[in-house]
Amino acid sequence: MKSTDFARLYSDVVDQLSDYTEMKQQGFFHECHNSDQIPSAQALREIRDLCRALIFPGFYGRPDVNCHTLKYTIGVEVERLYTLLVKQIAASLSFTCKTGVTAIQYKQKAEGIATHIVESLPLLRRTLETDVRAAYNGDPAATDISEVISCYPVIKTLINYRVAHELYLQQVPLLPRMLTEMAHNETGIDIHPAASIGHHFTIDHGTGVVIGATCIIGNNVKLYQGVTLGARSFPLDEEGHPIKGIARHPILEDDVIVYSNATILGRITIGKGAVIGGNIWVTEDVPPGAHIVQYRTPNPS
Amino acid sequence: MKSTDFARLYSDVVDQLSDYTEMKQQGFFHECHNSDQIPSAQALREIRDLCRALIFPGFYGRPDVNCHTLKYTIGVEVERLYTLLVKQIAASLSFTCKTGVTAIQYKQKAEGIATHIVESLPLLRRTLETDVRAAYNGDPAATDISEVISCYPVIKTLINYRVAHELYLQQVPLLPRMLTEMAHNETGIDIHPAASIGHHFTIDHGTGVVIGATCIIGNNVKLYQGVTLGARSFPLDEEGHPIKGIARHPILEDDVIVYSNATILGRITIGKGAVIGGNIWVTEDVPPGAHIVQYRTPNPS
Amino acid sequence: MKSTDFARLYSDVVDQLSDYTEMKQQGFFHECHNSDQIPSAQALREIRDLCRALIFPGFYGRPDVNCHTLKYTIGVEVERLYTLLVKQIAASLSFTCKTGVTAIQYKQKAEGIATHIVESLPLLRRTLETDVRAAYNGDPAATDISEVISCYPVIKTLINYRVAHELYLQQVPLLPRMLTEMAHNETGIDIHPAASIGHHFTIDHGTGVVIGATCIIGNNVKLYQGVTLGARSFPLDEEGHPIKGIARHPILEDDVIVYSNATILGRITIGKGAVIGGNIWVTEDVPPGAHIVQYRTPNPS
Amino acid sequence: MKSTDFARLYSDVVDQLSDYTEMKQQGFFHECHNSDQIPSAQALREIRDLCRALIFPGFYGRPDVNCHTLKYTIGVEVERLYTLLVKQIAASLSFTCKTGVTAIQYKQKAEGIATHIVESLPLLRRTLETDVRAAYNGDPAATDISEVISCYPVIKTLINYRVAHELYLQQVPLLPRMLTEMAHNETGIDIHPAASIGHHFTIDHGTGVVIGATCIIGNNVKLYQGVTLGARSFPLDEEGHPIKGIARHPILEDDVIVYSNATILGRITIGKGAVIGGNIWVTEDVPPGAHIVQYRTPNPS
Amino acid sequence: MKSTDFARLYSDVVDQLSDYTEMKQQGFFHECHNSDQIPSAQALREIRDLCRALIFPGFYGRPDVNCHTLKYTIGVEVERLYTLLVKQIAASLSFTCKTGVTAIQYKQKAEGIATHIVESLPLLRRTLETDVRAAYNGDPAATDISEVISCYPVIKTLINYRVAHELYLQQVPLLPRMLTEMAHNETGIDIHPAASIGHHFTIDHGTGVVIGATCIIGNNVKLYQGVTLGARSFPLDEEGHPIKGIARHPILEDDVIVYSNATILGRITIGKGAVIGGNIWVTEDVPPGAHIVQYRTPNPS
Amino acid sequence: MKSTDFARLYSDVVDQLSDYTEMKQQGFFHECHNSDQIPSAQALREIRDLCRALIFPGFYGRPDVNCHTLKYTIGVEVERLYTLLVKQIAASLSFTCKTGVTAIQYKQKAEGIATHIVESLPLLRRTLETDVRAAYNGDPAATDISEVISCYPVIKTLINYRVAHELYLQQVPLLPRMLTEMAHNETGIDIHPAASIGHHFTIDHGTGVVIGATCIIGNNVKLYQGVTLGARSFPLDEEGHPIKGIARHPILEDDVIVYSNATILGRITIGKGAVIGGNIWVTEDVPPGAHIVQYRTPNPS
Repeated sequence: MKSTDFARLYSDVVDQLSDYTEMKQQGFFHECHNSDQIPSAQALREIRDLCRALIFPGFYGRPDVNCHTLKYTIGVEVERLYTLLVKQIAASLSFTCKTGVTAIQYKQKAEGIATHIVESLPLLRRTLETDVRAAYNGDPAATDISEVISCYPVIKTLINYRVAHELYLQQVPLLPRMLTEMAHNETGIDIHPAASIGHHFTIDHGTGVVIGATCIIGNNVKLYQGVTLGARSFPLDEEGHPIKGIARHPILEDDVIVYSNATILGRITIGKGAVIGGNIWVTEDVPPGAHIVQYRTPNPS
Repeated sequence: MKSTDFARLYSDVVDQLSDYTEMKQQGFFHECHNSDQIPSAQALREIRDLCRALIFPGFYGRPDVNCHTLKYTIGVEVERLYTLLVKQIAASLSFTCKTGVTAIQYKQKAEGIATHIVESLPLLRRTLETDVRAAYNGDPAATDISEVISCYPVIKTLINYRVAHELYLQQVPLLPRMLTEMAHNETGIDIHPAASIGHHFTIDHGTGVVIGATCIIGNNVKLYQGVTLGARSFPLDEEGHPIKGIARHPILEDDVIVYSNATILGRITIGKGAVIGGNIWVTEDVPPGAHIVQYRTPNPS
Repeated sequence: MKSTDFARLYSDVVDQLSDYTEMKQQGFFHECHNSDQIPSAQALREIRDLCRALIFPGFYGRPDVNCHTLKYTIGVEVERLYTLLVKQIAASLSFTCKTGVTAIQYKQKAEGIATHIVESLPLLRRTLETDVRAAYNGDPAATDISEVISCYPVIKTLINYRVAHELYLQQVPLLPRMLTEMAHNETGIDIHPAASIGHHFTIDHGTGVVIGATCIIGNNVKLYQGVTLGARSFPLDEEGHPIKGIARHPILEDDVIVYSNATILGRITIGKGAVIGGNIWVTEDVPPGAHIVQYRTPNPS
Repeated sequence: MKSTDFARLYSDVVDQLSDYTEMKQQGFFHECHNSDQIPSAQALREIRDLCRALIFPGFYGRPDVNCHTLKYTIGVEVERLYTLLVKQIAASLSFTCKTGVTAIQYKQKAEGIATHIVESLPLLRRTLETDVRAAYNGDPAATDISEVISCYPVIKTLINYRVAHELYLQQVPLLPRMLTEMAHNETGIDIHPAASIGHHFTIDHGTGVVIGATCIIGNNVKLYQGVTLGARSFPLDEEGHPIKGIARHPILEDDVIVYSNATILGRITIGKGAVIGGNIWVTEDVPPGAHIVQYRTPNPS
Repeated sequence: MKSTDFARLYSDVVDQLSDYTEMKQQGFFHECHNSDQIPSAQALREIRDLCRALIFPGFYGRPDVNCHTLKYTIGVEVERLYTLLVKQIAASLSFTCKTGVTAIQYKQKAEGIATHIVESLPLLRRTLETDVRAAYNGDPAATDISEVISCYPVIKTLINYRVAHELYLQQVPLLPRMLTEMAHNETGIDIHPAASIGHHFTIDHGTGVVIGATCIIGNNVKLYQGVTLGARSFPLDEEGHPIKGIARHPILEDDVIVYSNATILGRITIGKGAVIGGNIWVTEDVPPGAHIVQYRTPNPS
Repeated sequence: MKSTDFARLYSDVVDQLSDYTEMKQQGFFHECHNSDQIPSAQALREIRDLCRALIFPGFYGRPDVNCHTLKYTIGVEVERLYTLLVKQIAASLSFTCKTGVTAIQYKQKAEGIATHIVESLPLLRRTLETDVRAAYNGDPAATDISEVISCYPVIKTLINYRVAHELYLQQVPLLPRMLTEMAHNETGIDIHPAASIGHHFTIDHGTGVVIGATCIIGNNVKLYQGVTLGARSFPLDEEGHPIKGIARHPILEDDVIVYSNATILGRITIGKGAVIGGNIWVTEDVPPGAHIVQYRTPNPS
C-alpha cells in the first residue's frame, strides 16, 4: 500500500516539475519535436567502437578478422560509421541551432562532414600508430605492442580525441565534446577537442590529465598522470561572463616531457625538449632544453 | 576434457570457500533470506537516471519530451522514482540493521523518506540550476548551456550528490554512499554524501577531487581537478579505531576558489573570497580574501 | 539519399583501410583464425564478477545467498570461474605467442594455471579481509564494514589486482594487465599486476593512484588519492628502447603512510613507519620513522 | 584452423550471392538507401505491446498502474504509439512504393493515418471489451474475466487484428499484414487484416483458424480451433496470375457458431444463427438457423 | 514536426482512455498498488526454464553440467525455483482475490504451495521419463532419445502441463493457465491445466491439439496433431452464463490412439485400446478395442 | 522469511534430483565435460537469421543493404555462418556420438560439411525464389512479392527446411531437426528434414501442416493449412520398437493440390495433377488428375 502522504503530494510535485516556462527561458529545458534531433549516447558509443575497430582491426571490433575477411568487415563498418555519423552530426547541428534551418539542410551538411571524417580515417590511423609507438617506447613495463593497443588508456583516449578534433575542425557542436567526455569518463584523461596535438604523443597512466581547449602540443611530447595544461585566468566581458575564444592555455613544443601532477597554466611556451618535474606549478615560459623540478624535498625531520 | 588436477581439488576449494562461520562473525559474509533486503546496483542506476531526467528533462531521459508530453512523462517518472526509492531505502535500512525490526516497519519508514525526497525535487532542481550557471560562467570553453548540462562531469556528480545528501540527512544508511560512489566511478569526483555544499558550486574537469564527510562549503565556490578537502589526522579510541563523527575536514566560505591539485587538510577555515593556488598543501586557516600560491617555481636550471 | 561524395570515395577508403601488409609487419594488425584465441572483454568482466562473488559472498554476486544455499552457489561459481579462466588464459597465451604451439598445448597449460588460481582463492580471501579491515580502521567516515566491502573503490581494485598478480606470477601474458586496467577504468587506481603488495593494504579515495610494476610494498601500508609510486628514468638499449625488467620503482616498508598527490620516484626505499606528506616529490631514500612534508605553505600574501 | 576447402571457395560464394542484378529485376532483392524506409519488426512488437497496454491497462504494459498514475501512463503511451506509427507507416508506404514520392510526403501522409489510428483507440477498446465478454460467456472453463484478458489467445489476436484492420482501411501496405502475422505466429490464428468482423466475436483455443481477406463476419459469432473460412477457387488472368480483389470468402451472419476443423469455402453465406458442426467441408450457402454436422460417425467396427 | 491534427486531439484521446470508472466496474481495468501483486511473464519464463533444467539436466539449462557439478547446479536451481514460485503464487492469489487478505497471508500460503511443488519434482521427473519413452517408441523417425528430449514439442508441453496441473490441484488461480498458454504459444498444443493425464502419454507433432478442462486420460494414450478433446455443449444458468464445473469433456481409457484432426466431444468414454481414425467427429461412447474411421473416401471422380 | 517446511526438505529434494545414475543409464541425463559439445539454441537462431539474410538480402538481416554495401555485407555474413555451422555441426556430432572420436576429428568433419552447406547457398536461393513465386501466384490476397518474402510463414519455414535438408543429407544428427522444429514453433508447419521436396512448393497459411520423414514431394505442389502427410502404421521389431528407415509416408507427384485439413497416410502415391479436397482421409493411391472430395455435405437439417 502506498503511503497516504505520497498520494497527497504526488500531483503537486508533478505540477511543479512540469512547469517549465521559466526553465525554458533560461535554457534549462530542452524541448524538441523530433527524437532524431538529439545526439544519442548509444549511437556515440557505437561510433567510438567502430572507430576503434577501423583503426586497429583485430584488437577492437570483431576479434577473428583475418586476411580473407578484413575487407568485407571494413566495408560494413565504414558504411555503418558513415550512417551513424550523418545522423549524429545532423542531430548536433539541430540541437544547438536557434534559427529555422530545415532538417534536410542539416542532413546535407552532415553528409558532407561525415564524408570528410571517413576520408580522414587512413591518416588518423597513421597518426595513431605513432602514438602507439611512442607509448611502447616510453614504458619499460610494456611487454608487447599488443598490450599497448589493447590495454593502455592513452590509446583509447587518443582515438576519441583525434576523431573529435576532426569533428571540431568541421565546426560540429556538442558531438566532439561528448566524444572526449566519453573517454574522460573511461580513462580519467580530459582532452578538449579543440586542443591541437602532434604525432608520437603519449600519456603514461593518465588519470587526472587535463588538456585545455587552446593548447598547442608539438610532436613527440610525453605527459604523466595528473598533469594539467590549464588557463590561469581569463578576461570577463561587461556582464561578468568569460570572453570566449582567447588563447589561454600553454604551448608545448616538440620533445617536451611533463612529470606527474605538474600544473602548467596560461598562454606560456614550454620550449623544445624541456622537462618539467612533477607536482609543480608553472606559470611562466620555460626555455628550450630546460629542466625544472619542485623545490628540493626538505630533509626528513 | 577437464584437468585431473582441478577435479581433485574442486570439492576441497568449494568446502573451504563455503565455510563461512568465521567470516560471518567478523562481518565478511552477508547472509539474508530475502532478496528484497539488499540494495540493487541496477535499481540505483535507474534511480540516478530518473533523477537526472526529472531535474533536466530533454537533456536526460526521454530525448523527445515537449510541451504536450512533459507532464505525462514527469508523472510516470515521479511515480517510478518513488517506487524504486521505497524499495531501495527499505533494503538499506534492512541490510545494515542488527535488530528485529519487521519488513513492514522498514517499508513504512522508507515510504516516509521517499515521500520527502520526491517532495524535495523542485528545490533540488533550482539549486542544480545555479550549479549549471556557475559552470557555464566559469568556463570560457563552454559554448552553450546545453553543453554544460549534457557533458560536464560536475553536473552529473552534483545531481547524485545532492540527492544522496538528502538521503543522508534522513539517516538512510549505505544508499547515499552507493549513489556518490556511482558518480565517483563515472567522473572521478568523490564527494561524501555527508558534506554540506552551498549553491552556485562548480568543479572544473574534476578528476581526482575529494570532498570529505564533514566539509562545509559556502555558496559560489569553485574547485579545479585534483583538489582534496581532507582530514589531517583523527583521534583513535582505546581500541585503536578512529572515533567517528568528529569534524575533521575544512570549511570553505563563500566565493572561494581552489586551483588544481591543492590539498586542504583538517578542520581549518578558508575565508570568504580566498584563492588557493594549485599543487599546494594547506593545513592552517586562510583569512578572507587571501591569495596563496606554491612557493615560487625555481628558475630553470 | 546518400551523398554522392561518399559513394565516390567509399571503396577507396575501404581499400586503404584494408591494406594491412605494412600494419601487420609492425604489429598494428592482429590476425587470427580462431575467435577462441583472443581474450574477451565480456569474459573478463564475468571473471571479475565471479571473483568478487566468491571472495565476499552476499555483498557481490547473488544477493540472497544464505546458509542453505551458500555451498551450492559457491560450487557453481567455482566451476564457472575455472571454465572461463581456462579459456581466457589459453587465449592470452595464444594471442601473444609467436611460435607454433598447438591449441591443445595451450589448453593444457591453461588448465594447470587455472587450477592454481582457483586453489589460491581461500588464501586471497583471507588477504583481502585484512585489506577491508585496514580500510575500515583507517576511515572515520566508514560507518560499517558492509559499507567498505560494498562501496570502497580500493576493495574492488584490490580484488582485481590480487587475482591479476597470481596470474602474473604464473607468467600469463596480457590477461593480468587487462584485469587491472578494468579496475583502473572503474576506480582510477592503476596498480601494475607485477607489483608486490603485503597484507592490510589500503588506499583512501584512490583516484589517480599509480603503483608501478617493480614496486614492493610491505604490510599495513596506506596511500591516499593521487599518490604516484613511479620510475624516475630508465636506461635505453642501443636502439633507444627502454630496457625491460630493471627494478625502477620504490620499496615501501611496513607501516608507511603516503598522503595525497605525493610522487615517489625511482628505486628508493621508504623506511618502516615513515610518513610522506601530500603534494611532494620524493626521489631519495627516506629513513624509517621519518615524516616529510611539503616545504611550508607560504604565508598568505 | 579454417579448412582449406572453405578458403578456396569463399570469395566465389560471396561473389555469386552478391550478384543481384537478376534478383532485383524479379523483386527478390530489396535495395534501399535509408534504413528508415523499412518497417522494423522490433518497432512492430513495441506497437503491439502499446496497443495492448492502452486497451487493457493493468493487464498488459505497466503492471502497477493505478488511479493516480493511469492518466500519466496513458499520456506517455499514446505519444509513443503515435511516434512509432508515423515512422512505421511512412516506412511501409516507402517500402512498397515504386514512384518518386518524397520522404516528406510519406511522412505527412503517415501523420494523418497515425492520427486516425490513435483517435480510434477508445472505440477499439469498446469493441474489444465485447470480445472479452463473448469469450468469457462462451467458456465454462474461464474462471474470471482477468484470466480471459491475460491468457486467451483470441484476445491477443483480436487486438492485433482490429488495429491492423484500421490500418488496412487507410490503405497502408505491408504493416497490417505484418501485425496479423505476428499474432498468427503467437497464437496460430491467421486473420487477414482485410476481413471484416463484427462485435462480440470469439474463437475458442484457436490454433489453425484461418479467416480470409474478403470474409464478412457479423456480430456475436463464435469459431472453434482449426476452422477455415477460405476461398474455393479463384479466376486467373491471361498470364495465369490470380485476379486480385474479387470477393471469394464466406459471409457469416450474426450468431453463427462453427465447430472445430470445419472448412467453409467460397463466397457463400452462412445464415443468421446457423451452427456448423466440426470437421466438415461446406461450399454452399447454409440457411439461417440451420444445423449441419458431419455425416454420421459410422458404428464402430 | 508533429502534425497539428494530432496535437489537437492528443489530450482528448488521453482523457477518454484514462476514464476507467466504467471499465473497472466491469473488470476491464485491473488496478493495483503493488507491482508484486501481479504474475510476471518474465518470471514465468524463468520458472519454465528452471523446471525443464531440473527435470532433464544437460538437455535444458546449463549445457555443461557433469557429475562434479550436477549437485551444486541443482541446489542453486531448486532454491531459485522456490523463490520465484513463492512470489508468483502469491501474486496470483492476490491478483484474483476480492477480499481483504493481507500480503503476508498470501505469502505464507504461497510458501506452502511452492514447497509442495518443489517436493513433487522427483515424481514429476519419473512421469515425464515415461512420456519421453512413449514418444520415442511411437515414432520411427526418432533416431535417439536425446532428439526426443531436445526437440519434441510434446515434451516441452508436458513439462509445463504437469507442473501447471500440480499448481491447479493446489487451487492456485491464473498461474497454471499462464503456464499452459505459454506452451500453447510455443507448440500449438493446448492442454487445460485441470485435465487429468496418465503416464506414458504422447502427442505426435501436436499442432492444433486441444485437451479440455474436465478430460480424464488414462495411461499409454497417444494423440496425433489436430485432435480435439472438447465439449459438445454446456448448460447455461439463468443469466445465460455457462455453468462452471460440470464434467463435459471425454474420458480416454488406457491404450487409446486418436489419429490426426479427430474431434471427440462431450462427456463420453473411449474404451481401453480403442483406435479413433483421423478427421472424424465422435460424440458417443466408443467401446473398448473398437476401431472407427471416417466414412470411406469416395472413389476419385 | 523462508518457510520452515522448505528448509527441511530442501537438501532432500536436491539429493534426489542429483542422483542421476539410473537416469544416465536410460539416456535421460546428458553429461558432458565441454560446453562446446552441445548445440546451442542461441547459435541456431543466429544461423537461421544469417541464412534468411543471405537468401533474401534487404528483406531479412541488415535492412539498409544496397548496391555499394551488398558484397561487404554478404562477405561478413558468409564467414560468420561458416564459423557458426562448424561449431554447431561439431557439437551435434559430438553430442550424439557414443564412441571415442576426438574433438579434432569432429571439427574436421564439421568443416567439410559446413563448406558444403555454404557452397549450396546460391542454389538454395534459386530454389527458394521458385517457392516465393509459387506463393505469390497462388494467393490472390498477396499484393506484392515483398509481402510474400517478408510475411508469409511458408517462406520462413522453407528456408529452415531447405538448409536442414542439406544438413540431413550430410548425415548431421540433431541439428537438422532442431532447425525445422524452430520453424515449427514459429509457424506451426512441421516438415521433417528428411522429407524430399521439389521446387515451386508452397503452403497457404500453414498452421498444422505435417510432412513426414519419408515423404517425396514433386515440383509445383501446393498444400493448405492442416494437411497431414503421415504414416498409417509401422512395423515393430521383436522388442516392440518401431523399425526405423522404412518408407511409410506418401509420394505426391508434380502439380498436386491438397486442401485444408486433409490427411494422407501411408506409402501411397498421389498422381500428377491430382486435387485432394479438404477434411478428408486418404489411405490409398490416387490416380493422376483425379479430384477427390469429402463425402457430400448433408443437406442442412
